[in-house]
Amino acid sequence: MRMVDLIQKKRDGQSLSEAEIQFMIKGYTADEIPDYQMSAFAMAVYFQGMSEEETAQLTMAMADSGDTVDLSPIEGVIVDKHSTGGVGDKTSLIIAPLVASVGVPVAKMSGRGLGHTGGTVDKLEGIPGFQIEMTREQFIDNVNTLKLALVGQSGNLTPADKKLYALRDVTATVNSIPLIASSIMSKKIASGADAIVLDVKVGSGAFMKSLEDARKLATTMVQIGKHLGRRTVAVLSDMNQPLGHEIGNANEVVEAMQVLTGMGEARLTEISLTLASHMAVLGGAFDDLEQARQELTAKLKNGQALATFRTFIEAQGGNPDIVDRHELLPQAKHHLEVRSEKEGYVSAMDAESIGIAAMLLGAGRETKEDRIDYAAGISIHKKVGDFVKAGDLLVELHTNREQAARAEEMARSAYEFVDSPVEVKPMIYEIIE
Amino acid sequence: MRMVDLIQKKRDGQSLSEAEIQFMIKGYTADEIPDYQMSAFAMAVYFQGMSEEETAQLTMAMADSGDTVDLSPIEGVIVDKHSTGGVGDKTSLIIAPLVASVGVPVAKMSGRGLGHTGGTVDKLEGIPGFQIEMTREQFIDNVNTLKLALVGQSGNLTPADKKLYALRDVTATVNSIPLIASSIMSKKIASGADAIVLDVKVGSGAFMKSLEDARKLATTMVQIGKHLGRRTVAVLSDMNQPLGHEIGNANEVVEAMQVLTGMGEARLTEISLTLASHMAVLGGAFDDLEQARQELTAKLKNGQALATFRTFIEAQGGNPDIVDRHELLPQAKHHLEVRSEKEGYVSAMDAESIGIAAMLLGAGRETKEDRIDYAAGISIHKKVGDFVKAGDLLVELHTNREQAARAEEMARSAYEFVDSPVEVKPMIYEIIE
Repeated sequence: MRMVDLIQKKRDGQSLSEAEIQFMIKGYTADEIPDYQMSAFAMAVYFQGMSEEETAQLTMAMADSGDTVDLSPIEGVIVDKHSTGGVGDKTSLIIAPLVASVGVPVAKMSGRGLGHTGGTVDKLEGIPGFQIEMTREQFIDNVNTLKLALVGQSGNLTPADKKLYALRDVTATVNSIPLIASSIMSKKIASGADAIVLDVKVGSGAFMKSLEDARKLATTMVQIGKHLGRRTVAVLSDMNQPLGHEIGNANEVVEAMQVLTGMGEARLTEISLTLASHMAVLGGAFDDLEQARQELTAKLKNGQALATFRTFIEAQGGNPDIVDRHELLPQAKHHLEVRSEKEGYVSAMDAESIGIAAMLLGAGRETKEDRIDYAAGISIHKKVGDFVKAGDLLVELHTNREQAARAEEMARSAYEFVDSPVEVKPMIYEIIE
Repeated sequence: MRMVDLIQKKRDGQSLSEAEIQFMIKGYTADEIPDYQMSAFAMAVYFQGMSEEETAQLTMAMADSGDTVDLSPIEGVIVDKHSTGGVGDKTSLIIAPLVASVGVPVAKMSGRGLGHTGGTVDKLEGIPGFQIEMTREQFIDNVNTLKLALVGQSGNLTPADKKLYALRDVTATVNSIPLIASSIMSKKIASGADAIVLDVKVGSGAFMKSLEDARKLATTMVQIGKHLGRRTVAVLSDMNQPLGHEIGNANEVVEAMQVLTGMGEARLTEISLTLASHMAVLGGAFDDLEQARQELTAKLKNGQALATFRTFIEAQGGNPDIVDRHELLPQAKHHLEVRSEKEGYVSAMDAESIGIAAMLLGAGRETKEDRIDYAAGISIHKKVGDFVKAGDLLVELHTNREQAARAEEMARSAYEFVDSPVEVKPMIYEIIE
């Protein structure tokens, strides 16, 4: 078998066999197939696509390319969640204890990443004392007893995906649905998920700008799940503005706890309950979504979801008092108010600009070496649909840095105004399963 | 400027600017742009094509990527010829002295190559004493006095094209008209051509299988020539069977000399006169093709074309007596007759199989290290349209090797027969200028 022939096959619109895909991914992982052949292949896929079967086989080959996590000692169905990413997305912090509170095991492995704010791991590390390092035995024991544990990613998971993703990034081949879908799903499968709930973001602040593209990506991932025996549900959710009111790390933990008490923002609560309901049903806790949603809502109201969160924090060495006393979380020295110079209805709010502003305040990492300032972030006071008068508070910036002029400008420029009332996009567009 | 953005631009069907193309080719030649980006770009070109202007600029950038040959000390217009390659193509051996005989300077630089037989350089080196190495001064002096010299390629011509071609070969991106056209034209321009005549082969034995594809390639190359101020004419000629009767090295020199006496095969004479006429007109020797053809035909009949060949051989150290005494050329030990087992009209003759047979006899190089046996080759006795009885001689194999069974089988299997008379394809399909 020669890689050049496989490139040509794909270039000419044919499908590769399972053996061919395995040959390619094994060879690429072992550095026997060079980057220059893989990038030509990726570009051919960009133009010719991949069949359902090919995409599933590519996913499996990448999942098998390195270490895989064996979660079989955990009792119950392991349901993982993945979000395609957006600004202010703290749903993992909410869903994990919420789903655990109805008895579905949540065994979460998270990596650090680059971005406007930290990832879930970083956000939790802002809690004094919280540890994400633990042994495999501890991790499994915690999940079995508390139904929830979160550990930093270790081992060599999906090296083929890592190599291919880095290559796609510099060869203009990121934007291919089968390649995106197989990349996401391979990581979830290598991490030991039995079932997967996907939060596919749609809109100006998301990678998928149109509902049509998001639907294609979601459908492809759900089909991969079917082919590989992992029940998969995708939720298409709005990312035309930041999610919730807080962007940052410690302040996102606070907002997550607000939702866990049933007092959170309506839209953030809505997506959290939607995702959690699907996870709970896939995890076997309920037969139908209606019932799951009712029970999960009850867990928010009766304090059990928040109690699970507290136990989880404590079990991993964090100070549980932060649940009642938010001021124990890192606090910024400076708080700047950004007030509106215009009057009107907020018609759009560029999530990307708000994200960059948060990063400029210290909330995210631009390079791997950057340190996150857990206290830095943005509190949003006006969102799409709100009426704003000149002088009204738009956002509050929290930072330990002396300079925030550029962040202020980015945050202000994120807002667009119109004269007449604006219809707000729904939080959830569609469920694909 | 970032290469990834240029790949994306091409991927999305946009055209690159001259500055962008120069950035890319300079960076690639200097190893600053890696192969994996260039191969993704080539695949994007495969799908999206390139505009006339882009293709011309790519050609120029590649021509300028290394050394260029300055032929300005040569008096007159330098007309170069290029053939896209086929089996039995000895037209360069014929045309060079023929065109020189009407006073148009022929300053030919040729490289060795891999193939079923040697290239023009190899074929001439089969002549005892013939030297292709000479100084630049000698070369220019020979062209100015004798109107004809041939030298081996030296210097670092079109390194960008060499790198890119090798990369395309292993990434399934050879088959792209703008990339093929710019590759060919960049070499001709770097070699100092003022005007170019292209012999674009069409048919089963050629790279371009269909007239439509050949027409596209020819048109693209003619347009490149226009953009870059090099008058260019393309001749589309038939390659559904080998050209002429001899395939090899020494035996092709003999066949070339037959044509130079006006006694050659009609089809081979036809294409030689067509190509030579266009060269002579571009070279300024004649105002119109009709006149050029008449004069060139006269040079064949009156012995002046052959006399020019003889002078040329002698000037480069070869034994001129081979012109009258073909037996002074290398002779093979073994001559095998391949006779027909069938009766019928020859309907097709697979040039590729005949070429491979010639290589198996020793006439070509499979790897750069292989040595050519100048005496090895094939004489063809039956061609498309001929009626053959069982037992008739199809081809004669000349070799110094002890084993020829595989070559014999390849040669025999090249023939297809039918019961009714066959229409022979024309030698020349079209002229594009």
